[in-house]
Amino acid sequence: MPNVSPLAPASFPAMAPIAGVRLAVHAAGVRYAGRNDVMVAELAPGTTVAGVLTQSTMPGQPVIWCRQCLPHGKARAIVVNSGNANVFTGRAGWQVVESTAATAARLFDCDPREVYISSTGVIGEPPPADRISGALPEIVGKLSPEAWEEAARAIMTTDTFPKGATATATIGGTSVRINGFCKGSGMIAPNMATMLGYVFTDAALPAAVLQSLLREATEVSFNCMTVDGDTSTSDTVLLCATQQAKNAAVTGASDPALAGFRQALRGVMVDLAQQIARDGEGAGKFVTIDVTGAENDRAARTIGLAIGNSPLVKTALAAGDANWGRIVMAVGKAGEKADRNKLAIAVGGHAITADGGPVPNYNEGPVAEHMKGLEIHIAVDIGLGSGKATVWTCDLTHGYIDINGSYRS
Amino acid sequence: MPNVSPLAPASFPAMAPIAGVRLAVHAAGVRYAGRNDVMVAELAPGTTVAGVLTQSTMPGQPVIWCRQCLPHGKARAIVVNSGNANVFTGRAGWQVVESTAATAARLFDCDPREVYISSTGVIGEPPPADRISGALPEIVGKLSPEAWEEAARAIMTTDTFPKGATATATIGGTSVRINGFCKGSGMIAPNMATMLGYVFTDAALPAAVLQSLLREATEVSFNCMTVDGDTSTSDTVLLCATQQAKNAAVTGASDPALAGFRQALRGVMVDLAQQIARDGEGAGKFVTIDVTGAENDRAARTIGLAIGNSPLVKTALAAGDANWGRIVMAVGKAGEKADRNKLAIAVGGHAITADGGPVPNYNEGPVAEHMKGLEIHIAVDIGLGSGKATVWTCDLTHGYIDINGSYRS
Repeated sequence: MPNVSPLAPASFPAMAPIAGVRLAVHAAGVRYAGRNDVMVAELAPGTTVAGVLTQSTMPGQPVIWCRQCLPHGKARAIVVNSGNANVFTGRAGWQVVESTAATAARLFDCDPREVYISSTGVIGEPPPADRISGALPEIVGKLSPEAWEEAARAIMTTDTFPKGATATATIGGTSVRINGFCKGSGMIAPNMATMLGYVFTDAALPAAVLQSLLREATEVSFNCMTVDGDTSTSDTVLLCATQQAKNAAVTGASDPALAGFRQALRGVMVDLAQQIARDGEGAGKFVTIDVTGAENDRAARTIGLAIGNSPLVKTALAAGDANWGRIVMAVGKAGEKADRNKLAIAVGGHAITADGGPVPNYNEGPVAEHMKGLEIHIAVDIGLGSGKATVWTCDLTHGYIDINGSYRS
Repeated sequence: MPNVSPLAPASFPAMAPIAGVRLAVHAAGVRYAGRNDVMVAELAPGTTVAGVLTQSTMPGQPVIWCRQCLPHGKARAIVVNSGNANVFTGRAGWQVVESTAATAARLFDCDPREVYISSTGVIGEPPPADRISGALPEIVGKLSPEAWEEAARAIMTTDTFPKGATATATIGGTSVRINGFCKGSGMIAPNMATMLGYVFTDAALPAAVLQSLLREATEVSFNCMTVDGDTSTSDTVLLCATQQAKNAAVTGASDPALAGFRQALRGVMVDLAQQIARDGEGAGKFVTIDVTGAENDRAARTIGLAIGNSPLVKTALAAGDANWGRIVMAVGKAGEKADRNKLAIAVGGHAITADGGPVPNYNEGPVAEHMKGLEIHIAVDIGLGSGKATVWTCDLTHGYIDINGSYRS
């Protein structure tokens, strides 16, 4: 078991119950011994759901299952296992998904399409056929409204700490709560989603509104975060609304009454996304990249991700080397409009470039000092437009090589 | 000084002179002490030239200079220094380029636009103003038709061995020769070119024909090779024809008389590209990725590069771990058409996947045995079309982290 990331939050946040959500975990022996590896969330009847799923052309069986369920917009249960991703597992893997959904549907007296499934772990190995569905009856007996941290722990793979976030907001004067948890550490370059994330609220919101809010928040949270540039086959984020809060009905995603909820949801998802970068495999530094002045927001994000995915930038960060030329290289390779004479790079708030070269009398001292820290801030102004994005990542260390040379074995 | 890559060829090839080409090297103290760091190639009057240059939006000063010279199509000299890339160096860097070209033009009695310049090394540090142009008169006195290996060594940065290749061909019954050398080890993800490569022939070919042949060969050589996905700001490949061979004039790039020359040029450039992958920073294994059955050749290359650039695939290769699920992941993230039920992966000639899962009775033993070797072969058939590409890369090891955490310091 690797040590906890030095970038981890001090503790898992205190998370109050959400009316209509109960959680349970179980050690089913999917792959790991002596730890919980199955998580079940029970959702009150009537719960609406939205989801964003990996854009990989090689999606896992659970992703394909969720994609079929989402148009129905209702969820009664989520079943997640760690240890086996159930990806590229052919008919045997599909049968595991179907039997898990059927068993849960019986236990919760619902349509199988109201059972959402995620799996994370090794790709291409047949998942154990009966361990997950066989354990469901026992798991259901343990459901509790309190088990947030246990749930976040049960879905971990190479993660070194459980990841949760919580917020409250009001909708038309009615208080609602948002709780979320996620996992992710390697194979992280979300493309319309990220590894696995589950967000719950008691708000009364229709599925179409949830979907709109979720897409919007995903764009500026999980989709702005990278560990290694390798988009997962299992990326899944679900947002569930149990309808238990007594808020007035909203007219749609653009209803002004949603302003506070929108902001709180975004805050929870950004917090979760940052925690994944803080737990990037082998991470020693948490890196925030603010890109401004790009042609548009999309271009800004592309440039930010080009910096955040560059092995040369990330190894320099690991070494605390103020080698800003590699940031120039990454901007240059991003394929978006840029002009070296307008490019302004700052690290830790210290200006480095102007007019196509280093600023006059550039002093590396303060930059080098900043780079010794655990939290690095890079600001890149392209100087061409008003597009902006913030991207989070981590450095690339020997730890990443160690973890990924031995993970499967 | 790191050890020579275990993947290096046994020796630098024997390279016969090319009529009209003389080479010299010099220790100018650009950055390194006690080694040659400037290379000059003299080309006979009338030599035609073609070039491909980095598509980075942050090109170095020498790239911008070469881009201005290429339309003239003639070359009398090439001046290359290692130790400083002269990228993002503002006015001071541009003056170095201009004074180098002016000095060489005086010495060779030519137009400054017939002097091609390349620089490789650290980005963003002002290059020494006079060391390169000041050394030129002395260097010119040392020109020799034999100094191929010395030339290849003088342009090295983190390279662990000099890279050369040679071939002969006939054009309309007349024998011609092709010699090439290059450098490159990190910041290697060529985009229309690669780090630095110089190819010379005595053939009598106009610049437009050269340009067409060079682009074509670049697509299947340097542009199919990656070390770390980081496209350089300095990528430059030049092809010079001294016109000294007595071959009959060709009618254009599609003249059938060029068939043998085209094939020989491609062979030299593929050889050089493979040598860069073999000398990838920290490389322990040389990896060939054959992609077939893609929608078209471009899609095949994109898929091959997605595999070749994936940190998860590359760390598994370093560990000799037959974790083929990561190849599935990389195909999935490539953004090109693919269908998991048609994807056929083989490693070392051993079939691994079929019908969306492992082949029946898949036995990992022979695959694991193959992966212990220094040369890994991955074959991926997409099963959709006739597009194909071959991509070369290396594994990702602790050596890469070591080299790039300390290179600049």
